[in-house]
Amino acid sequence: MKLWGGRFDKAIDGAAHGFNASLPFDRRMADEDVSGSVAWARGLGRCGVLAEDEVSVLVDGMEQVRAELAEGRFAFLEGDEDIHTAVERRLGDIVGPVAGKLHTGRSRNDQVATDFRLWVMRACGRMDAAVADLQTALADSAEAHLHAPMPGYTHWQPAQAVTWGHWAMWHAWALERDRRRIATARTAASALPLGSAALAGSGFAVDRAWLAAELGFERVIANSMDAVSDRDFAVELLFAAAMTGMHLSRLSEQLILFANPSLGFVELDDAYSTGSSLMPQKKNPDMLELARGKAGRLVGNLVGLMTTLKGLPSTYDKDMQEDKEPVFDAVDTLAAALPVLTGLVETLRVREDRLIAALDPAMFATDVADRLVRAGVPFREAHGIVGRVVRAAEEQGVGIDALDAEALRAVDARLPAATEGAFDWAASLASRAAEGGTAPEALRAQLAAMREAIGSRQVGSYSSTGWAESP
Amino acid sequence: MKLWGGRFDKAIDGAAHGFNASLPFDRRMADEDVSGSVAWARGLGRCGVLAEDEVSVLVDGMEQVRAELAEGRFAFLEGDEDIHTAVERRLGDIVGPVAGKLHTGRSRNDQVATDFRLWVMRACGRMDAAVADLQTALADSAEAHLHAPMPGYTHWQPAQAVTWGHWAMWHAWALERDRRRIATARTAASALPLGSAALAGSGFAVDRAWLAAELGFERVIANSMDAVSDRDFAVELLFAAAMTGMHLSRLSEQLILFANPSLGFVELDDAYSTGSSLMPQKKNPDMLELARGKAGRLVGNLVGLMTTLKGLPSTYDKDMQEDKEPVFDAVDTLAAALPVLTGLVETLRVREDRLIAALDPAMFATDVADRLVRAGVPFREAHGIVGRVVRAAEEQGVGIDALDAEALRAVDARLPAATEGAFDWAASLASRAAEGGTAPEALRAQLAAMREAIGSRQVGSYSSTGWAESP
Amino acid sequence: MKLWGGRFDKAIDGAAHGFNASLPFDRRMADEDVSGSVAWARGLGRCGVLAEDEVSVLVDGMEQVRAELAEGRFAFLEGDEDIHTAVERRLGDIVGPVAGKLHTGRSRNDQVATDFRLWVMRACGRMDAAVADLQTALADSAEAHLHAPMPGYTHWQPAQAVTWGHWAMWHAWALERDRRRIATARTAASALPLGSAALAGSGFAVDRAWLAAELGFERVIANSMDAVSDRDFAVELLFAAAMTGMHLSRLSEQLILFANPSLGFVELDDAYSTGSSLMPQKKNPDMLELARGKAGRLVGNLVGLMTTLKGLPSTYDKDMQEDKEPVFDAVDTLAAALPVLTGLVETLRVREDRLIAALDPAMFATDVADRLVRAGVPFREAHGIVGRVVRAAEEQGVGIDALDAEALRAVDARLPAATEGAFDWAASLASRAAEGGTAPEALRAQLAAMREAIGSRQVGSYSSTGWAESP
Amino acid sequence: MKLWGGRFDKAIDGAAHGFNASLPFDRRMADEDVSGSVAWARGLGRCGVLAEDEVSVLVDGMEQVRAELAEGRFAFLEGDEDIHTAVERRLGDIVGPVAGKLHTGRSRNDQVATDFRLWVMRACGRMDAAVADLQTALADSAEAHLHAPMPGYTHWQPAQAVTWGHWAMWHAWALERDRRRIATARTAASALPLGSAALAGSGFAVDRAWLAAELGFERVIANSMDAVSDRDFAVELLFAAAMTGMHLSRLSEQLILFANPSLGFVELDDAYSTGSSLMPQKKNPDMLELARGKAGRLVGNLVGLMTTLKGLPSTYDKDMQEDKEPVFDAVDTLAAALPVLTGLVETLRVREDRLIAALDPAMFATDVADRLVRAGVPFREAHGIVGRVVRAAEEQGVGIDALDAEALRAVDARLPAATEGAFDWAASLASRAAEGGTAPEALRAQLAAMREAIGSRQVGSYSSTGWAESP
Repeated sequence: MKLWGGRFDKAIDGAAHGFNASLPFDRRMADEDVSGSVAWARGLGRCGVLAEDEVSVLVDGMEQVRAELAEGRFAFLEGDEDIHTAVERRLGDIVGPVAGKLHTGRSRNDQVATDFRLWVMRACGRMDAAVADLQTALADSAEAHLHAPMPGYTHWQPAQAVTWGHWAMWHAWALERDRRRIATARTAASALPLGSAALAGSGFAVDRAWLAAELGFERVIANSMDAVSDRDFAVELLFAAAMTGMHLSRLSEQLILFANPSLGFVELDDAYSTGSSLMPQKKNPDMLELARGKAGRLVGNLVGLMTTLKGLPSTYDKDMQEDKEPVFDAVDTLAAALPVLTGLVETLRVREDRLIAALDPAMFATDVADRLVRAGVPFREAHGIVGRVVRAAEEQGVGIDALDAEALRAVDARLPAATEGAFDWAASLASRAAEGGTAPEALRAQLAAMREAIGSRQVGSYSSTGWAESP
Repeated sequence: MKLWGGRFDKAIDGAAHGFNASLPFDRRMADEDVSGSVAWARGLGRCGVLAEDEVSVLVDGMEQVRAELAEGRFAFLEGDEDIHTAVERRLGDIVGPVAGKLHTGRSRNDQVATDFRLWVMRACGRMDAAVADLQTALADSAEAHLHAPMPGYTHWQPAQAVTWGHWAMWHAWALERDRRRIATARTAASALPLGSAALAGSGFAVDRAWLAAELGFERVIANSMDAVSDRDFAVELLFAAAMTGMHLSRLSEQLILFANPSLGFVELDDAYSTGSSLMPQKKNPDMLELARGKAGRLVGNLVGLMTTLKGLPSTYDKDMQEDKEPVFDAVDTLAAALPVLTGLVETLRVREDRLIAALDPAMFATDVADRLVRAGVPFREAHGIVGRVVRAAEEQGVGIDALDAEALRAVDARLPAATEGAFDWAASLASRAAEGGTAPEALRAQLAAMREAIGSRQVGSYSSTGWAESP
Repeated sequence: MKLWGGRFDKAIDGAAHGFNASLPFDRRMADEDVSGSVAWARGLGRCGVLAEDEVSVLVDGMEQVRAELAEGRFAFLEGDEDIHTAVERRLGDIVGPVAGKLHTGRSRNDQVATDFRLWVMRACGRMDAAVADLQTALADSAEAHLHAPMPGYTHWQPAQAVTWGHWAMWHAWALERDRRRIATARTAASALPLGSAALAGSGFAVDRAWLAAELGFERVIANSMDAVSDRDFAVELLFAAAMTGMHLSRLSEQLILFANPSLGFVELDDAYSTGSSLMPQKKNPDMLELARGKAGRLVGNLVGLMTTLKGLPSTYDKDMQEDKEPVFDAVDTLAAALPVLTGLVETLRVREDRLIAALDPAMFATDVADRLVRAGVPFREAHGIVGRVVRAAEEQGVGIDALDAEALRAVDARLPAATEGAFDWAASLASRAAEGGTAPEALRAQLAAMREAIGSRQVGSYSSTGWAESP
Repeated sequence: MKLWGGRFDKAIDGAAHGFNASLPFDRRMADEDVSGSVAWARGLGRCGVLAEDEVSVLVDGMEQVRAELAEGRFAFLEGDEDIHTAVERRLGDIVGPVAGKLHTGRSRNDQVATDFRLWVMRACGRMDAAVADLQTALADSAEAHLHAPMPGYTHWQPAQAVTWGHWAMWHAWALERDRRRIATARTAASALPLGSAALAGSGFAVDRAWLAAELGFERVIANSMDAVSDRDFAVELLFAAAMTGMHLSRLSEQLILFANPSLGFVELDDAYSTGSSLMPQKKNPDMLELARGKAGRLVGNLVGLMTTLKGLPSTYDKDMQEDKEPVFDAVDTLAAALPVLTGLVETLRVREDRLIAALDPAMFATDVADRLVRAGVPFREAHGIVGRVVRAAEEQGVGIDALDAEALRAVDARLPAATEGAFDWAASLASRAAEGGTAPEALRAQLAAMREAIGSRQVGSYSSTGWAESP
């Protein structure tokens, strides 16, 4: 069924129909399409365009369609061009000619924008929850090993001692920013286009503020041309997803490096590992590698839609039909990756023995410098002194904690005092007590703040249907 | 001057120094670097690490450095690796060995993050103002031709009549979303990293909340590893810029099409046009084309940094030095494009005569259908009837307003009544009176809302220095 | 079935299995997987690792598997992790324990690379043919209207007269470069990884040159680590596809603009147009818009894989499993778009009357300047003179061909002679007779060269199976 | 100076001039611009449009301009819009009014395309040489440690033993593909646009084949609209550069991981390392991190231009001015990165002792399985047996080479024989003797092939001027 055709002589070419058809993907918005149409029918009723009994018939019919869709009983037909067409066709089967009144004062341009925004709003709620679950797994891991010392890296070189708790919460905080972006994307989506018709505004006086409230939108879009043209909300979701993917790629990379036997900081549970078809000894972190790799896909989705939107001439151009697949793919990608990473972190075995074994006295070089500073040496001079200590130790082939007093004095007379107790990791950690530091009390405060952040979940106002709705 | 070296035997290779050096671009953050160091010196004084007189000497010295930089008297030296090194070196020239105390408890990792965030915050304020100026030009153009009828397009085909005011405000509303994103990027930047040192937190008890307030940050970053690692704020600025660029590309594309003589809706002022080196008759919309084209560059900047950040293993990896150039380029690109587009819109001659001449009776087909609906015909049936009218008119080679009553009746008996007065654009526009529609009163409300939105400018809390600071 | 597990205690988590599984997409390489395994079995036989009868049993079993796959009778099982696992499992069902000998000296790392390269080589052949079909449609259109004059545009402003033939062949030449890139991608793919095992090379002396010839590869990959790690060929295909998409976007944009009634240069056949659900008069170029929009998707696929590959640490990392979906999507996208565009161009009605009507005398300004040059006026001076003519005509509100001799002489005394006959489009076209110009004889030469280019199609050496293989 | 203006009343706005001006970057093509103009003048002379003495005067004048440019004596003026304008203006200063004849039959559209192609061709020659230098450094490193055993990784887990020579040549082979792409980009550029004028072809019968030969182009572009519109060659260079960057990112990542003390496979020379401003012990691989990070920038440049080109409506649109900066930036980026990486590899200390120490008996698990296969056990069964050996060893907390015969027999009776000598790395390496494997004789063949590949450098036919020309 086509919703147009009066002026056409000839049917569309078969390949062209297939190229044009959006049903293979936009059927995922079936529930939202029904919701939008129900609200529209009621809105037409409220302003007198439809009679009360017409509204009832239409709404009942739509709810039957919704049930058929939800229960997998809905029969899509070959000629259905998109979900809107399919739903209206089926409505006609059920309620007869009155179905032809539903599209009054509406266009597919404002209809599809409404459906898609509702879908995005719902997806944002699910994404938020899935990210928060991973935050919880990280916070739990942090709490379980809050004060376990480990090397902190810059330039992938050991730098200073931190703790596992500090490390795990770092990543939880990065995810908190992703949740903010997801919430921002939801707010961007939460503006009603319905009532804008094709582009000029509806010719019927439907109350759009009422429609917005009915459908759970925060506000009404102020300009009808903008309403059918704006896809910023979709790009914002893709941006939020790509940034989440970028963060997951960094978390995953680090766990992959930690799982290499030369460090051995973590052991993955068998349930989140795979083996090799050739090498029997292998235990591979495939989940982490996939999560890292999918950052590329998510960036690709973002770029794709931005490039598509660039330079479009009209209000609605058909190019914009390319908005849905990247969004669906991005949401599906995170819906697959996040729970797996959550499970992986929950079951991760953190080897505190290996973390401690990896601490090297040189990581405490800054502590020695800080002690010299406390003894009145300007930092730059202290930095230079400790640099010479490092070189002296390297020349002797020992750790910097193994130089005797004489060797230290040969570098600087103040060193024996300054190195006394400086290689004690507990003292080093305790000294980083400024807000945000890795000292025990700073960490406890941080953990409490993280728990509170996790608690304030975004609540999707629209629907409670599951994340991975059946396509 | 290098800020390291005690443990090194050999100087850095010349090409490697050049590859590594960030001074050619990070000198743009000179003022922010000084501000950060002044605050840090005061912070060290407040917690007793520096004596009051040391703080005074350092602050006075820094202010002298700032003045030299501002006045172009600062002499960068060959060996200066980055702006931090250059500034600290010069400080040493001025105040002597006490300069060596400034870097106490600080690392370039938290220092550069602080500088860059301050720069981004300032840039966001400037971007907001420049976007708002373009909104004003669009709103002024809208107001000047608020009710001038013109064709509205979907699929780059004439669809329905709208007005120039409606068209211009569409684009102003799209820019409003860009301003929201710019504000979001500013908020993302407005979190203090200083006091995180290299990654583990500072070993000195500097009051970070005080530092944040002093420097104009809204909050303190909660985790020191996150503080030196997070570049989300830079990516957010690039995203906001790329979306702005995307909107400018659509606005520009449309004006380019409008300026083609076959439409001739607008004439560009000579001051915003160029000619051809070969074809004497040409008047080219180069400014619009460049603005359209630069959308690509802005997407490229965004993708570049996201790809760079993907999969980084440590807290600070040197890869992150690649964060600044795309941000500077994005800000410069918009700083160049926005005022030119603003001037172009301000001086644009809108040809109302050409807009009206382009109205085609077929654009009112929906109005005929709506009239049939009001007469009780279901919309789907009305749509089909009017489709046949269009075909009949095409077969006769006339406009749909030129069919006589007989021809209309041949299609459907209700048509003569329904078409009576339907081709009057004023009536058509007036009928689109729902919120957001193109009817006069809806437009006046929209214009008022737009003026209010423009009025609430983001006020940068940090500095009043000009947008295009001298590099 | 998993091909690993001896060392594992616990089954993989269900969600992790789903996240890890590539079967939903890599089943498209089923035929290639069988071909690779058949060749491998024969190779193992040739070097004595398998007995002749074992080879026969394996090959017969594999051919049965191939038939089941081709005929849709192959039953994939829940636990099948990827196509390799599924095929080997089914082989075991058919031939018993000897199936366990097939994977000798091989790894999935070299196996999947072999399969994927074969698939890409085949796809390149299909892409080449589809692009050549569109070239043919363009060349046919060019030939049908070879000398039909039309405005040529720069800056979307009328510049000089060209012909439809010239315009259509422009796009055919751009596509010729796409075919070259597709051929380059095929060459990149045509290197054999099989025999590299996991990364170190096979421990069995299989003759890799023989394998390459058997499977249709041009050469053997020289380094086994490179063999399992290299995905350049996939990125090259994505690049070739994205560039094709970019060219299609430009062709489509131009046809969309030509189809706008203000120009009306072309009319789309009903079979390649769509209508509006709201506006009965609309005839929309959806196919062209989709083709333009999909350029974004193709760029996204390219960027996605490049970002995924960036910074990978090992030879084979699981991230590389992300290589297939973008390639499949890019090939499918072009497989859908190209035939539709070909049909659209084949059925396009070119309105020569409208092309001619759009010629404006100002387009011949350069011809006047050229005539002044031939009369000895330096070009720069001539350009300035004609510029003043244009302005004089604008001031009088007439075309530049309508100025009388007096008005011309007022600008420059040499103008009356120079303008004599200068506004004749046939003469103008004829004067552009240098190679590549729009003059009739230049066009005929160009058309002949284009026909020859189209004729030399890339012949895929591997398989004749259809383009859109069933997934 | 503007090359247009006769029809303009008003000067261009200052900001608009700045936005429009390309001189800040296109001055890098000054030498190419002169070369193109010299050839054009001669071409005009050959077909009689210019007199012989006019040609001489113009050519001499142009050579003087070239010298001024080369020696830094050329004075650019405020009003110079682009390099073409600046050069022609200066030519006029030198030779007087005859300079006004140079632009006869030419447009900036074909002129800039010619200049840019010449620049790209030259840059490709330089890029090829710089990549080949890095290949040489890798091959030298390979040769110096050709048979030094080291762990090979998949999934960043130790997989099988390979050699340093094999590892280093892997990366050299990847770079060989980059050289092929660079050569392809050069071929794409090597097509002459000159003689196409603005878009319709030149009105003067200049011999374009002669021009092409004179300027070093391989062929003439067949269609004048294509000639001014085609920027594929620029995108191809960006693609070749981005792929090179991707390979450098993988090489760099691996060296960064190898330099971490937990592996300690390599030590960077002080000349290619940096220190920390805070942590005196740090020796950081900044060069490698920057090289890894710049992969993002190169992808960004590619995406930017592709997005810019998408959907352009005309032949030449001003958007295309955005083609140069990403190309210059990409070439500069590689010109900076490649020599530094080359120097870094040349001075890299490969620690063979650490490589050997990192070999783990489990890496030879596949060898045990292969031995079982040679004893008649189907591979799948052998794989399972060895998997159980790995588990048994893990349970005992020993290496798989430390299980006694009894423990082995408990898993499978054939194991004691199969493990005999299986953990000898030399034997393991020697067994990977198939072409491309890591066995000594295979490596020697590979090294010879690599040396030959390096030897066949692309020779730029156009110019010998240095890579990093002064901007």
